[in-house]
Amino acid sequence: MKSRITGHTVLTGLLGSPVAHSISPMMHNESFHQLGLDYAYLAFDVGTENLKTAVEGLKVLGVRGFNLTMPDKNLMAEYCDKLSPAAEIIGAVNTVVNDNGILTGHTTDGIGYMQAAKDAGFDLTGKTMTLLGGGGAATAICVQAALDGLKEIHVFNIKDQFFPRLQALVDKINDRTNCKVTLNDLADTSALKTAVGNSHILTNGTSVGMSPNTDGCLITDMSMFRPDLIVSDVIYNPEETKLLRLAREHGCRTFNGLYMLLYQGAAAFTLWTGKEMPVDIIKEKYFNR
Amino acid sequence: MKSRITGHTVLTGLLGSPVAHSISPMMHNESFHQLGLDYAYLAFDVGTENLKTAVEGLKVLGVRGFNLTMPDKNLMAEYCDKLSPAAEIIGAVNTVVNDNGILTGHTTDGIGYMQAAKDAGFDLTGKTMTLLGGGGAATAICVQAALDGLKEIHVFNIKDQFFPRLQALVDKINDRTNCKVTLNDLADTSALKTAVGNSHILTNGTSVGMSPNTDGCLITDMSMFRPDLIVSDVIYNPEETKLLRLAREHGCRTFNGLYMLLYQGAAAFTLWTGKEMPVDIIKEKYFNR
Repeated sequence: MKSRITGHTVLTGLLGSPVAHSISPMMHNESFHQLGLDYAYLAFDVGTENLKTAVEGLKVLGVRGFNLTMPDKNLMAEYCDKLSPAAEIIGAVNTVVNDNGILTGHTTDGIGYMQAAKDAGFDLTGKTMTLLGGGGAATAICVQAALDGLKEIHVFNIKDQFFPRLQALVDKINDRTNCKVTLNDLADTSALKTAVGNSHILTNGTSVGMSPNTDGCLITDMSMFRPDLIVSDVIYNPEETKLLRLAREHGCRTFNGLYMLLYQGAAAFTLWTGKEMPVDIIKEKYFNR
Repeated sequence: MKSRITGHTVLTGLLGSPVAHSISPMMHNESFHQLGLDYAYLAFDVGTENLKTAVEGLKVLGVRGFNLTMPDKNLMAEYCDKLSPAAEIIGAVNTVVNDNGILTGHTTDGIGYMQAAKDAGFDLTGKTMTLLGGGGAATAICVQAALDGLKEIHVFNIKDQFFPRLQALVDKINDRTNCKVTLNDLADTSALKTAVGNSHILTNGTSVGMSPNTDGCLITDMSMFRPDLIVSDVIYNPEETKLLRLAREHGCRTFNGLYMLLYQGAAAFTLWTGKEMPVDIIKEKYFNR
């Protein structure tokens, strides 16, 4: 077999730190291969201190685009020439498209979440969500869910020093979408119980419950798990968090964050190539746990 | 088949303009594949105006190294932290090794030429060469041949505005090696005839005779082609230049520039990976014309 890479092969990739164990190179390179697209996707360990230099370099190297992961997502928003509406609202970027030196920043994590929900059989249009967390994953979901036509989102977060910034973000989403978003103190268990009671879906957007701290779970009142509640988690390691296990045991339908990861990549893939990622093949080869 | 590129794959590549039709990506990627090395080699169309930005970017992206082709070879010498002796003498670099942010510039074109000569069965140690040309290829050959123990090199070049610079380079080679190098006017046919008469090998280091101008040939006096003269050309397109054809028809042994291309790449490969390029496989797959 001759090697696939030629002088015409176009580079794409992932910037962040750490990145070496990312599944994204496999997912994208396999998709390029499957579709016969002359691209390659590599991972580059680049922290915020070198991000600007790396981005300037990638631009003149003529890359088609790249993904960003922690800790580069927020800073990257400052280096883009344009931002998608969602990226502009949250001020973070996980996907950059390079059009002949013009960098447009997108955030596809929320798109990934919404597609994962669809994949699990749930159309969230017009629905109400209770969303736990105010970090990168949660805010990406919040803004995309609002843009995609959810009716109401109740965000719950610890009242830490970032709370006012989160309030400003929530205000922005309320300004720019038809969704009604409220921000609440996670410590207010009564408000949480009311919100979940009024919601079609409860989503954990925090890292609570992630390996190795698999004992963590933000919901302690099992009466919140009524059978018609959908419960989802951005975490995919473990595959079933304590939250999802308890919800399932109480009759809720659940889905984890694995396909959010897949579909955020698929959305980036389409932005770069204009083609659909062959998700069935990618699921079978790389998400088959 | 799963794609070879993972989050651990290390980038190498080629900078220049144009680069898309280069054989180097095939040669290196095939070699990485054959040896099971987790590297990828891509070509980037980067001219001198963007070279510095590209190089700074590649450094923070953690590439292992890269090749340079026209028009970037000379300017790259200024951006290196260190230079090999040959690169320092000619002030040009075709291979950069990145050791954790320290860039060392090498020139492997001359190494490629000397290895191609060996491959063709010629040990040039202690021998005398007549070398036509004073451009990048010729000077790379001149300095490497001098470093590798040739006794004497007679360089012939057009007396153009670059002649004094070439004289300075020749002086530097004389200073730093045990080889005796002379610079002569290519128009001086009598000096050329004497030089070739005293040489074991005549080498064309110019582009005269290259496709599409295949009628070009700097040697018009056929009496120079005595049967024990070796005649070589840096050109490989056409495979046999008019110079090589005439020399062959007069009984000389000849070799073209094809394996110079192969072995300059093999030398770069070793600088990056510490391994030998599997040249027999590469010859068969990519140099089998």
